Amino acid sequence: MCMVAKNNKLNATEYLHANFPKFIAQLADFIRIPSISAQPQHAKDIERCAQWLAKHLFQIGLENIRIIATEKHPIVYADWLHALNKKTLLIYGHYDVQPVDPVKEWHHAPFSGKVDDHYIFGRGASDDKGQLFVHLKALQYYLNKTGRLPINVKCIFEGAEEIGSPGLESFLEKNDVILRSDVGVISDTKIPSVSQPAITYSLRGMLSLELKVRGPMQDLHSGTFGGAVYNPLQALCEMIASLHDHEGRISIPGFYDSVQNKTESERRYMKTVGAPDSEIIKDAGAAASWGEKGYSAYERTTVRPSLSINGITGGYEGDGIKAIIPSKASAKISFRLVPAQEPLFIEKLFKHYMTSITPPGISCTIKRFASAKPVVVPLDNPYIQAVATAYKKAFQNETVFLASGGTIPIVNLLQEKLNIPPVLMGFALPTDNLHGPNEHFSLSNFYNGILTSIYFIHEISEHET
Amino acid sequence: MCMVAKNNKLNATEYLHANFPKFIAQLADFIRIPSISAQPQHAKDIERCAQWLAKHLFQIGLENIRIIATEKHPIVYADWLHALNKKTLLIYGHYDVQPVDPVKEWHHAPFSGKVDDHYIFGRGASDDKGQLFVHLKALQYYLNKTGRLPINVKCIFEGAEEIGSPGLESFLEKNDVILRSDVGVISDTKIPSVSQPAITYSLRGMLSLELKVRGPMQDLHSGTFGGAVYNPLQALCEMIASLHDHEGRISIPGFYDSVQNKTESERRYMKTVGAPDSEIIKDAGAAASWGEKGYSAYERTTVRPSLSINGITGGYEGDGIKAIIPSKASAKISFRLVPAQEPLFIEKLFKHYMTSITPPGISCTIKRFASAKPVVVPLDNPYIQAVATAYKKAFQNETVFLASGGTIPIVNLLQEKLNIPPVLMGFALPTDNLHGPNEHFSLSNFYNGILTSIYFIHEISEHET
Repeated sequence: MCMVAKNNKLNATEYLHANFPKFIAQLADFIRIPSISAQPQHAKDIERCAQWLAKHLFQIGLENIRIIATEKHPIVYADWLHALNKKTLLIYGHYDVQPVDPVKEWHHAPFSGKVDDHYIFGRGASDDKGQLFVHLKALQYYLNKTGRLPINVKCIFEGAEEIGSPGLESFLEKNDVILRSDVGVISDTKIPSVSQPAITYSLRGMLSLELKVRGPMQDLHSGTFGGAVYNPLQALCEMIASLHDHEGRISIPGFYDSVQNKTESERRYMKTVGAPDSEIIKDAGAAASWGEKGYSAYERTTVRPSLSINGITGGYEGDGIKAIIPSKASAKISFRLVPAQEPLFIEKLFKHYMTSITPPGISCTIKRFASAKPVVVPLDNPYIQAVATAYKKAFQNETVFLASGGTIPIVNLLQEKLNIPPVLMGFALPTDNLHGPNEHFSLSNFYNGILTSIYFIHEISEHET
Repeated sequence: MCMVAKNNKLNATEYLHANFPKFIAQLADFIRIPSISAQPQHAKDIERCAQWLAKHLFQIGLENIRIIATEKHPIVYADWLHALNKKTLLIYGHYDVQPVDPVKEWHHAPFSGKVDDHYIFGRGASDDKGQLFVHLKALQYYLNKTGRLPINVKCIFEGAEEIGSPGLESFLEKNDVILRSDVGVISDTKIPSVSQPAITYSLRGMLSLELKVRGPMQDLHSGTFGGAVYNPLQALCEMIASLHDHEGRISIPGFYDSVQNKTESERRYMKTVGAPDSEIIKDAGAAASWGEKGYSAYERTTVRPSLSINGITGGYEGDGIKAIIPSKASAKISFRLVPAQEPLFIEKLFKHYMTSITPPGISCTIKRFASAKPVVVPLDNPYIQAVATAYKKAFQNETVFLASGGTIPIVNLLQEKLNIPPVLMGFALPTDNLHGPNEHFSLSNFYNGILTSIYFIHEISEHET
């Protein structure tokens, strides 16, 4: 049944076994480019990374390679469209990465691409360079072995996913015809363990904001003025402290109004496949669980909304002491939203609430960095079975279906804007330290991921057109 | 009566008029050394500043010049002890300065020493290099004109006042005999305006702490873990928000128990000499007044305790967004304390309260940077009148008596450890931006300050021994 099995010249495991050390070395090169999308000082690295990727796509035999400017960072496009009467697969990934601080907490340099017996280390190793690379190596397998692909393929690799994908929506809208495909595969999600493959069927939306408060015109001597004027840092803390109630719920009036509660049967399924609270808390390296009463940690991190303070800055942050009342302070805050919360409406509620509790003598402003809608991927599309079959062959195990707490803006856009059914085929592990120090990618998942992609492409090639 | 008036050769105003441009240039040189005591990277500048000062003391004719190591930064000592049967004056000042950030808010470089028609600019211009220099130029006047001083003088200039004077107490204890004096003058306080001299008679104490909270082992992806674990920044904000009640009072249990309330007559005097609320709020560049109900802004900043958040750091502080739950966060917090609050007892109360409200999954640690006791200077010492007389001659106005909200550790130590009556003869203005950007010193106060010190030394020379 499987082309791989039918043709000895195409034995995927033998090919992969022979080439795996080279593929690891290539991935390490890819990881070594510090393509941090959030930080202007890395703009040139983003460019360099796009060029490296474009060159790599050319080298493995893809065609029509383009580096396409967007309002923020470029999108790398490539395709191979010579499989007449065959389906077309859109492969999405992102080559940009998160910032690396706190750098001190990395055991190796964040962009070392260091490899040991089990992992490849570096920012982006798992999110998303490693997972993106899985598909390139699968394409390379076919192109090396047969000089062609069994299906049509279009690739879009984005450089701004970690900052909320600005420019992606307008790129998709402008290129809806060029991008037309039968199915989109996105590998930027997790599976529970190296032996348990999983398809993600829901993602939280996101709203990322900056809250700035201002008080006195300039920093003041805390001896001279301490007790006379409102301290902006105190105000900021009090405002942030007002965002949650004692039951771990978000206190913004109206915040939960549009949240769709899950059905009992979905909650039951989640209980059977989701990690237990103890495991999630252990993966977090935390000493205790916390959050909205009445929900498991798996539910709280996937199908319930949350609000995280990502960073605060204000006043003196150097060594020792500086006896001041700072003139201003700011916090970076991000929401994870669930169906049917509208990010821009939530922003309005937040603004209204913050303004209403800003104390006298303090002013506040709110700036939006990014937003993305929550999304549920219907499981009735015919390619879900193809993923499950491919996973089964590579991982020797049945697929489970997971809700994810993360956000991948492309997923909603594929569904809503291009009418392409997305499938979320993940290869990251809960312990990969995504966004944290010492991010790494499991070599076992890299290997099985490539196999999965090879089998998935083969499955699609068997679909009727 | 005044020696200056009796001897034409010693006309202080003529001398000062002729030398003032040179004195300004010398002060600018002094300001240009970035002697920030809080920051290790400026340790060499502190050394350089101590050496510059020692050399200057030598050049004006003082003797026994020493740079004396302490547990932190060196103390510069000099004396002139040839006035038999005359009183001995101890002059204290500090040559270290506050950090300069936010640097962007300075109109000139923080250590430019730039001079315009009215001010000399730079960190330390007023606090305390300018005020310290006042006395050196007064000594220089006598030494230039007569080759001697009319009284005995001992100088100690400290390099760690802005970090709470570590090492000062043990220095004073070890050298109590060498430092024995009849009166100590400290010029590190404010006067209400260029035409209103003032003696400060009370200072708040200080307790400077760092509150650190820790949560998960490392920064976490806020999509993956948002809603599952307590965010350390959220915990820190909630703990800080619990430090004040809605009436502007500090909520730490037991905090006010030892506060001595002022008498009605003292409160009445404070009303007559203190700046009105509107002026204090205007000086602060704030849009509204805030603080403990039932007290004027002048009282709240001088004879009532206060608590300021000096800085917070935690999570992502770079450009754009980083979707994390940080593993830790910290705040620098300083108290200003009033009689009879004991800094170390207040620290215990704070620790106990913070520990009691630390949420599950979060741990907190508290570190002390510095502490100093509050102090009241009795106004019955005979040198207060000498200051008032000197002020009157220089400023053509009567002296008022002010409470200050700041902290100068030496004042309490002189009283308690060396039994030397201190007098706080100030020359800073409320608008000097002490500790803030664009600190400056009024040239008018520099000029009249030198005159005041000349007249003060003369007054002391007339005291019976």
